[in-house]
Amino acid sequence: MKALRFTAADAVSVDELEVPRIAADEVLVAARSVGICHSDVELLEGRYIIPFSYPVIPGHEWSGQIVETGADVTEFAPGDRVVGECVIGDDHFGFSISGAAAEFFVAKPAWLHRLPDSLSFTDGALVEPFSCGYHALMKAGNVNASDTVVVFGAGPIGLGVTAGAAALGARTITVEPAAGRAEAARKLGAEVVLDPTAGPIAEQVAEATGGAGGTVVIEATGRPSVMADVLDVAAHGARVVYVGIDVGGSAPAKLGLIQSKELSIRGIIGSPGVWPETLRFLDRAGLDLSDLVTGRFPVERAAEAITASRDTAKNIKVHLEFGAAR
Amino acid sequence: MKALRFTAADAVSVDELEVPRIAADEVLVAARSVGICHSDVELLEGRYIIPFSYPVIPGHEWSGQIVETGADVTEFAPGDRVVGECVIGDDHFGFSISGAAAEFFVAKPAWLHRLPDSLSFTDGALVEPFSCGYHALMKAGNVNASDTVVVFGAGPIGLGVTAGAAALGARTITVEPAAGRAEAARKLGAEVVLDPTAGPIAEQVAEATGGAGGTVVIEATGRPSVMADVLDVAAHGARVVYVGIDVGGSAPAKLGLIQSKELSIRGIIGSPGVWPETLRFLDRAGLDLSDLVTGRFPVERAAEAITASRDTAKNIKVHLEFGAAR
Amino acid sequence: MKALRFTAADAVSVDELEVPRIAADEVLVAARSVGICHSDVELLEGRYIIPFSYPVIPGHEWSGQIVETGADVTEFAPGDRVVGECVIGDDHFGFSISGAAAEFFVAKPAWLHRLPDSLSFTDGALVEPFSCGYHALMKAGNVNASDTVVVFGAGPIGLGVTAGAAALGARTITVEPAAGRAEAARKLGAEVVLDPTAGPIAEQVAEATGGAGGTVVIEATGRPSVMADVLDVAAHGARVVYVGIDVGGSAPAKLGLIQSKELSIRGIIGSPGVWPETLRFLDRAGLDLSDLVTGRFPVERAAEAITASRDTAKNIKVHLEFGAAR
Amino acid sequence: MKALRFTAADAVSVDELEVPRIAADEVLVAARSVGICHSDVELLEGRYIIPFSYPVIPGHEWSGQIVETGADVTEFAPGDRVVGECVIGDDHFGFSISGAAAEFFVAKPAWLHRLPDSLSFTDGALVEPFSCGYHALMKAGNVNASDTVVVFGAGPIGLGVTAGAAALGARTITVEPAAGRAEAARKLGAEVVLDPTAGPIAEQVAEATGGAGGTVVIEATGRPSVMADVLDVAAHGARVVYVGIDVGGSAPAKLGLIQSKELSIRGIIGSPGVWPETLRFLDRAGLDLSDLVTGRFPVERAAEAITASRDTAKNIKVHLEFGAAR
Repeated sequence: MKALRFTAADAVSVDELEVPRIAADEVLVAARSVGICHSDVELLEGRYIIPFSYPVIPGHEWSGQIVETGADVTEFAPGDRVVGECVIGDDHFGFSISGAAAEFFVAKPAWLHRLPDSLSFTDGALVEPFSCGYHALMKAGNVNASDTVVVFGAGPIGLGVTAGAAALGARTITVEPAAGRAEAARKLGAEVVLDPTAGPIAEQVAEATGGAGGTVVIEATGRPSVMADVLDVAAHGARVVYVGIDVGGSAPAKLGLIQSKELSIRGIIGSPGVWPETLRFLDRAGLDLSDLVTGRFPVERAAEAITASRDTAKNIKVHLEFGAAR
Repeated sequence: MKALRFTAADAVSVDELEVPRIAADEVLVAARSVGICHSDVELLEGRYIIPFSYPVIPGHEWSGQIVETGADVTEFAPGDRVVGECVIGDDHFGFSISGAAAEFFVAKPAWLHRLPDSLSFTDGALVEPFSCGYHALMKAGNVNASDTVVVFGAGPIGLGVTAGAAALGARTITVEPAAGRAEAARKLGAEVVLDPTAGPIAEQVAEATGGAGGTVVIEATGRPSVMADVLDVAAHGARVVYVGIDVGGSAPAKLGLIQSKELSIRGIIGSPGVWPETLRFLDRAGLDLSDLVTGRFPVERAAEAITASRDTAKNIKVHLEFGAAR
Repeated sequence: MKALRFTAADAVSVDELEVPRIAADEVLVAARSVGICHSDVELLEGRYIIPFSYPVIPGHEWSGQIVETGADVTEFAPGDRVVGECVIGDDHFGFSISGAAAEFFVAKPAWLHRLPDSLSFTDGALVEPFSCGYHALMKAGNVNASDTVVVFGAGPIGLGVTAGAAALGARTITVEPAAGRAEAARKLGAEVVLDPTAGPIAEQVAEATGGAGGTVVIEATGRPSVMADVLDVAAHGARVVYVGIDVGGSAPAKLGLIQSKELSIRGIIGSPGVWPETLRFLDRAGLDLSDLVTGRFPVERAAEAITASRDTAKNIKVHLEFGAAR
Repeated sequence: MKALRFTAADAVSVDELEVPRIAADEVLVAARSVGICHSDVELLEGRYIIPFSYPVIPGHEWSGQIVETGADVTEFAPGDRVVGECVIGDDHFGFSISGAAAEFFVAKPAWLHRLPDSLSFTDGALVEPFSCGYHALMKAGNVNASDTVVVFGAGPIGLGVTAGAAALGARTITVEPAAGRAEAARKLGAEVVLDPTAGPIAEQVAEATGGAGGTVVIEATGRPSVMADVLDVAAHGARVVYVGIDVGGSAPAKLGLIQSKELSIRGIIGSPGVWPETLRFLDRAGLDLSDLVTGRFPVERAAEAITASRDTAKNIKVHLEFGAAR
């Protein structure tokens, strides 16, 4: 079978490997779509925060189809369409252990969730990033048609937040300078997209909201100066969630606004425990997330796919696509 | 009767006025202790945020004794020891309407709470500032002996937080540079008092907590740079409350810590709705807050009292004391 | 002007009264739609829980139009379309003080909210009951497309919950025996309507949910035996809200389910503080609540309207309609 | 080494077994104190709810001392005093896998927590039941000196709640008919102990609280009729937690009180995720839980210990004590 491997820092290789064997409590999955994430690129660059060793098969945003089940497995059968969580006890799928970017890979039933029929394999590989946006909205709490949600950033997480907020009925304002991402935000439900380079963002949000500001604000850029802007655009009593990652940076912030606006602020990491909910939500809400995928490559062209994923001016999310059968 | 009045900006006057008359649904209260608050000084300086007009009798941190009740009043009787909330519908007692710094003043039963026998009149006039600290601790939530609470600032609010946190069983670390306030913090239950001028506060808190940081952090200084320090000293998953007030200032802050530490942050204003709880808490927990009061003056020396209250290096809280009877 | 008055127990009268005069801080409102509530009937029957005295003009579910403003009123102008809250400090509009069932009535700006253009006067008079249903959904928390909401009862509150839950994206199952109300539930968004007389409700809900039960359950019948059914139909970890009123009744209940299903349960009264949110929600979500109104009468036929409202087999909500101008 | 084994339903055996060998990622623990729990008795009777097979070494409430560590273990060293959680992924220690009732047993570092020096081995074996009571109090939320906590039942969980509530500063009323348990409740901090057989409990609680009822009520008996009493004794707005277990029973309950008192109710199972907090709480709060232990036996007399633990009129908690060294 073909598998993408990172064999050393900055060394991408597509290798012919033997199809792995499963134990009695395991299943063999044929990959279908595998997203390339910013953290995959960090893994390739040798600077990932979790211990790992090369060679490693990356891939933690995936959908697939079960092709074989171990003797003790009762929950799944060959043919089942599945997706899987990436944090597995102390292990991180696609980082500390082999991931999904191979024609076949081994998984345990406990990691897996059935992909509803209404969702494509492309949708399936977007469940992981969308679940983070969904989680952010749930931590804001009770987002609904009475809210104006301001989302900073239209990367995969910010677009997931945008789509989710719109599906919850909220008026959604996405802040994003890049034209392609702004367009994606509009397609996914943003009523307004603001370009932060066009003028002070607090003024733009005030204008778009009759001076009220966002009753919910979600930060998904990971840039400290934007994290500071969040406080300026929040309405009195707003619920704020920080999901974008920044390590070590700093920016001037009017922190007194936290008190004077009586803000409620939550920082969150990932999307622990919310996959079943997220899948039910996607199934019923009928979101079409496929606009996030701006590049699709077969595994043979994985190096090209990674290069494309690094070109964030052009691409939002790049997928590897697989079709192997047994 | 004698009453303190602010008759114009920076004009303090102690005047002989007629004892006010009460309506059928009102009570007449003889003031006993009346605290001078920072906002009273702002009122005197003519820059208070709520509309007001001179002359005004200030005083919203008070205890007193009922001396007369209107015909329709059934909840209280002469002799009852009482305290009162300062936000009354749209009015602010001691700001938009006359306050407590007079030998006698009029109140409505709905504003009043009975002062438990265990609390002195001095304690009673401290209920208002303490209620803000209590409210901050409740918004942090579930503060108990498993927590390390870091409190920034040992003014009346910060000391209330310190005393409350200690009474809830938490290990309490107060950060305060002024020696007198540091000493008060220790008396009120701080296990550790750190001097922020002695070195980087994040390092000092790390040392005092074995590297863990505060599981609860309360900001009560109102200084932007300290508001930024809060993020540095918070433990992973900490509950943070901002109660100190700053309007318009800014400071460099590592806002990425909100996400990476998964913080929960609340900004709060005042202590709406918590007076009955606060009074039960003070009654049962047996806190001695009287160390907060560093100066006591009769109303005749009110100007002197105000000068003393402005000398924050020497004084924490200054009280006017009254003994008028009818 | 014409006004409906209850002049004694069970004595309905439509009287010609003088148009009331307003003070400088008041407005005069021309009623447009006024709903007849179960509690109006209790008032008429002389058994209302709040002190009142005859004669009284009832009416606390209303919409109207401002026709005159006092000299000090700046927030509103003649022509403004408004609705108003019914609990006003210690007073209850339409109970302890005169209500809206008159061609003109006096109100204070603080009670009023602007009716969005998208909402008709009929919708406006439904804001009060809908706000209770909205409040119930917010107390359940985070109701969305991942949820199955089971609503017991399709009276005005239960139908509001049904419409609100559907608007939030949830799969909504309403339990109601009366055919007309069942039909209204379907029109307002219930995907499934179950007839509790058709068999054990726990079995019916289990069948409709693949055995999972409701992730959210709202009780809006006020019948003790139904309150007990709630525990049976709730999914593991469900959020439950009791909004239906029963005083003194009791029913056998499997209370052990609260622990074994790890339920979160809230009881709520009314809809304090949520009107601005509710109005924004109705404005944006585009709910058509008018199916709740099954009878419309001019004030001259108020007695007939009250009789109709008592015929709960035929009617859900009966409105008095007014068109007086000045 | 000596080990207690259940070899068949109702067959207790103390056997001489070989000391088990540890893998590189495991530690060997010498048991010190092992509590006998109601669920151990159910396991012995062959009716436990989790799959298991005889023979099985029971014991999931334990303290011990590490005597050997595998090559890869860095977190612990021989001599370390430890306690351990009982739910381990899908396994249940002492049920689906071998437990602690042996002179030596194998454990993995991830299950273990260091026992603070201030806690005895007896205290350590009480951490598991106490953690459930602590968890109940945290789910009630913000329990403090302003609260009156009513605890139904003075078994190990109810007594843990009693001790925890008192340590949090609350006035604590424990409801318990058995004299020995009532006495233990008093020692652990109950200010009042009510005998439910002495008269209607709602009246007794009303009398003890000046008519107000409990602001917090915790149900720890698992009896349906008591679960119904909870609603009667709760104050308006009370926070209620059901922790006692009942499967299938039912009792008449005034469920309308949930709405009219605006109660917040939570059902909880076990104490997931709270061990580190619980241990810090016990360490700092200085609770002496040893009064819960009414019988202590060496492992050789395990059969006798089990008989004693079944005599709930005489015993609250029975411990097996071990002293084996290597």
